[in-house]
Amino acid sequence: MFLRHSWYVAALSSELNERPIARTILGEHVAMYRNFEGRIVALSDTCAHRGYPLSLGTVVGDKLVCGYHGFTYDAEGTCVAVPGQDRVPSRLAVRTYPLVELGVWVWIWMGHDEPEMAKLPETPWLLESEEWAVVSGVAKIDANFGLLVDNLLDLSHETFLHNGSIGTPEVATTPLEVEVDDEIDMVNVYRHMNDVICPPFYSNTTGLEGRIDRWQDIEYFPPGYYKLNSRIAPVNQPPAPDGSDHHAFHVKIFYGLTPSTDTSVYDFWALSRDFCVDDRDIDGFLEKMQSSVVQEDVDALNILQRRINGGQEIAEVSIKIDRGGLSARKMLERLTEEELARQS
Amino acid sequence: MFLRHSWYVAALSSELNERPIARTILGEHVAMYRNFEGRIVALSDTCAHRGYPLSLGTVVGDKLVCGYHGFTYDAEGTCVAVPGQDRVPSRLAVRTYPLVELGVWVWIWMGHDEPEMAKLPETPWLLESEEWAVVSGVAKIDANFGLLVDNLLDLSHETFLHNGSIGTPEVATTPLEVEVDDEIDMVNVYRHMNDVICPPFYSNTTGLEGRIDRWQDIEYFPPGYYKLNSRIAPVNQPPAPDGSDHHAFHVKIFYGLTPSTDTSVYDFWALSRDFCVDDRDIDGFLEKMQSSVVQEDVDALNILQRRINGGQEIAEVSIKIDRGGLSARKMLERLTEEELARQS
Amino acid sequence: MFLRHSWYVAALSSELNERPIARTILGEHVAMYRNFEGRIVALSDTCAHRGYPLSLGTVVGDKLVCGYHGFTYDAEGTCVAVPGQDRVPSRLAVRTYPLVELGVWVWIWMGHDEPEMAKLPETPWLLESEEWAVVSGVAKIDANFGLLVDNLLDLSHETFLHNGSIGTPEVATTPLEVEVDDEIDMVNVYRHMNDVICPPFYSNTTGLEGRIDRWQDIEYFPPGYYKLNSRIAPVNQPPAPDGSDHHAFHVKIFYGLTPSTDTSVYDFWALSRDFCVDDRDIDGFLEKMQSSVVQEDVDALNILQRRINGGQEIAEVSIKIDRGGLSARKMLERLTEEELARQS
Repeated sequence: MFLRHSWYVAALSSELNERPIARTILGEHVAMYRNFEGRIVALSDTCAHRGYPLSLGTVVGDKLVCGYHGFTYDAEGTCVAVPGQDRVPSRLAVRTYPLVELGVWVWIWMGHDEPEMAKLPETPWLLESEEWAVVSGVAKIDANFGLLVDNLLDLSHETFLHNGSIGTPEVATTPLEVEVDDEIDMVNVYRHMNDVICPPFYSNTTGLEGRIDRWQDIEYFPPGYYKLNSRIAPVNQPPAPDGSDHHAFHVKIFYGLTPSTDTSVYDFWALSRDFCVDDRDIDGFLEKMQSSVVQEDVDALNILQRRINGGQEIAEVSIKIDRGGLSARKMLERLTEEELARQS
Repeated sequence: MFLRHSWYVAALSSELNERPIARTILGEHVAMYRNFEGRIVALSDTCAHRGYPLSLGTVVGDKLVCGYHGFTYDAEGTCVAVPGQDRVPSRLAVRTYPLVELGVWVWIWMGHDEPEMAKLPETPWLLESEEWAVVSGVAKIDANFGLLVDNLLDLSHETFLHNGSIGTPEVATTPLEVEVDDEIDMVNVYRHMNDVICPPFYSNTTGLEGRIDRWQDIEYFPPGYYKLNSRIAPVNQPPAPDGSDHHAFHVKIFYGLTPSTDTSVYDFWALSRDFCVDDRDIDGFLEKMQSSVVQEDVDALNILQRRINGGQEIAEVSIKIDRGGLSARKMLERLTEEELARQS
Repeated sequence: MFLRHSWYVAALSSELNERPIARTILGEHVAMYRNFEGRIVALSDTCAHRGYPLSLGTVVGDKLVCGYHGFTYDAEGTCVAVPGQDRVPSRLAVRTYPLVELGVWVWIWMGHDEPEMAKLPETPWLLESEEWAVVSGVAKIDANFGLLVDNLLDLSHETFLHNGSIGTPEVATTPLEVEVDDEIDMVNVYRHMNDVICPPFYSNTTGLEGRIDRWQDIEYFPPGYYKLNSRIAPVNQPPAPDGSDHHAFHVKIFYGLTPSTDTSVYDFWALSRDFCVDDRDIDGFLEKMQSSVVQEDVDALNILQRRINGGQEIAEVSIKIDRGGLSARKMLERLTEEELARQS
């Protein structure tokens, strides 16, 4: 069962143009495009006539024409033209989905009720600005959503799976702290590594060499929004009591976790930094580095899912590093129960 | 359930030679070859010994030798030799199927009873002659037979799916007429487009330019035989009262719809024309054009079937253009009921 | 159901080094490696933490470190280190499997009880020596173990499937003898072909030309060990009464049949010869020839299994050549019943 009463990342802003794209989100086929008026539209990717994917159709002005028999839909999903006759069957329409574009990400509301705007995350860092530079991307993982939650909530795996880019020995050896906020439905995982090696991911972008303080503060808002506040600073230069932190470099690493099917999930990501914001070379380096890190996760989770598909039942053993993931699972269970309760 | 008491196209004539081919027809594995006497043979593609496909065997004289252990079958399917011993087990044989070669197509009788010769379609246009030139081909579609019936019975889709080759706007906008003949089990769909654009498919072969009269008269004989009579003529030059039609160009487009499995179907096609019958360039052009049109159908139906395989249930909405397809479905249902009734 | 109380070939000796390999044996995921002390280790390929394959980990000294979160196991499968904390959960371990390296093959004991050393085959011919030269290899077949047993117990198929390398007409025409020894659980199949054609497999290696005596004496020890004693000699030069056989060339062809899943099996092979033992060119020729023969079996059995997967039920007809295979099936059934009886 999927949590539907929620916002999920559905597309990168750059993906939406007059050529529709297809995504399967929470098991539903969704077609998305940007029409010639600039409006972004998400509608059921299934023509009401014979079920052909509308994403294979053509955007004509502010409408989408099915590529099989030409049934034509406006931005509200209403069918406004059919072939061979003037009269359109009354009330012929396909479902549309509310979309909100916030910087590099486009969010979709998957609930059948009115979209709850208050639940939409605030993400000013995802808009290009003088303070923040952003790069973004997306990968599809052939694995259950839960495996991606496990992965992101415990960054110990950086040391082993992402060795050579963001992983250093100290990530695995440094204990972490977990805090759960059941009021605003957030799981925090803190890992403050002081006087440690600077991995290539940061040495090549900040110019810091030798040893650093490196903090990883995770904020996970189940089900679909994850923010990692990464602080890289010279050793022994903590933030000032007023919160100012001029010696440090800040990178915010965002993940949009969007279930596709029971065995696949979209892994949207975005990286915002508050330094060298005009440096396109650093953009390119980070984009390449992060894509490669994400691909390592994709490969690992695909392998785990194939094992599960093959019938493997894993008797898990959990240790301290797993407390973040276990807290996230617990919160997801509670949210699921609450959504079920609301429905009945 | 498949209609078995019927003839289906099993192969192109040109496909049958001393190297056997394998086809799965109505769920049955069939091996076919032409032996050194020129006789065409269809037999079960499953050796009686250990089930190895006989299509992987070798034709030796008028016999087929299994490629695994050498069990040898004559053209009646009787096993006439086995390895390691002189005596062949008595009554050892595999099923054979009646074949009839009519021009470019070879028909197979899939019933368990005697083949009904009267049900074999008359197709003089499929033989090379001074009046008719023929090109032919076959594609396999990973989709249910019914999706191909839907596709062929409504040519409105030419405008959208085959835009640029045979589709023009008027195909979709011109209303069609449907006639059902329950005596001879035929569905007719007529669409007469007068004073319309000539698509490349015909302008490049007939030499007609500018506007034309274009008639599409479909005769569908369920389950497996479909004939589209296409008439292309200068505007306002209808056939004479005696039926003669000297100003027009005629192309007959044949389809053999042969179910393979529940989710696959062979799409045999042949194109006969009554003009430029000696022009090999036009042969080549039409073969290429038609292959490309068929591939567009293949792609579309494969996509629809993948949706169905993924569990999609489509609540269809039908309009006037669908009357041909709906009539075909209805007739197929009746024929299925009749076949079931005959069996019980 | 698999016979577990048995030794199976798990790897070629040459495959085991500090980079772990993964095999699925009797449905169980097994990781194998040779540590820096030279010791060979087989352990469950499933980390106790989150189930990641240990075969993707790194061998560090005498330990294996999981590639996801760094859980570290010694050669006894005991977990000796975890990330983020000093204390390792007590009794945390994965299953290990006994391995024995005998020449070019490594055997694994798949039983849950103590390994029965007496059941380990004696295979002195698989060690490099002054008397014997050995080449070896392995292929994976996407077919049930039983199809490989059928294949190897009836070499009549050489004539048809391996025509051009080891198959000649006389293999199929020469009757065979079968003996079953239910004391030591062995099936023998003898085929002595006298005054027959020498196939390229042997003419190119022995230098014999024209006609030969060619004996094929199979010893099959179900489930997993098969030895074909091949004798190639000038015509009318039988072994002396004392067993000496100086005019003949001897090749022993070994197969290790190791079930992977219900629909896949490893086909380990090794070839030992008592002539030209220092000739690396003959090594290369035989390795290439045998690989190609094995690939022909792989292709044939994959095809048969795909038929079975597709729902084909084969009503087998058996003749004299099948007596070896039928005896093997019967013995496998008895051994299975005995193993079931021991368990209950």
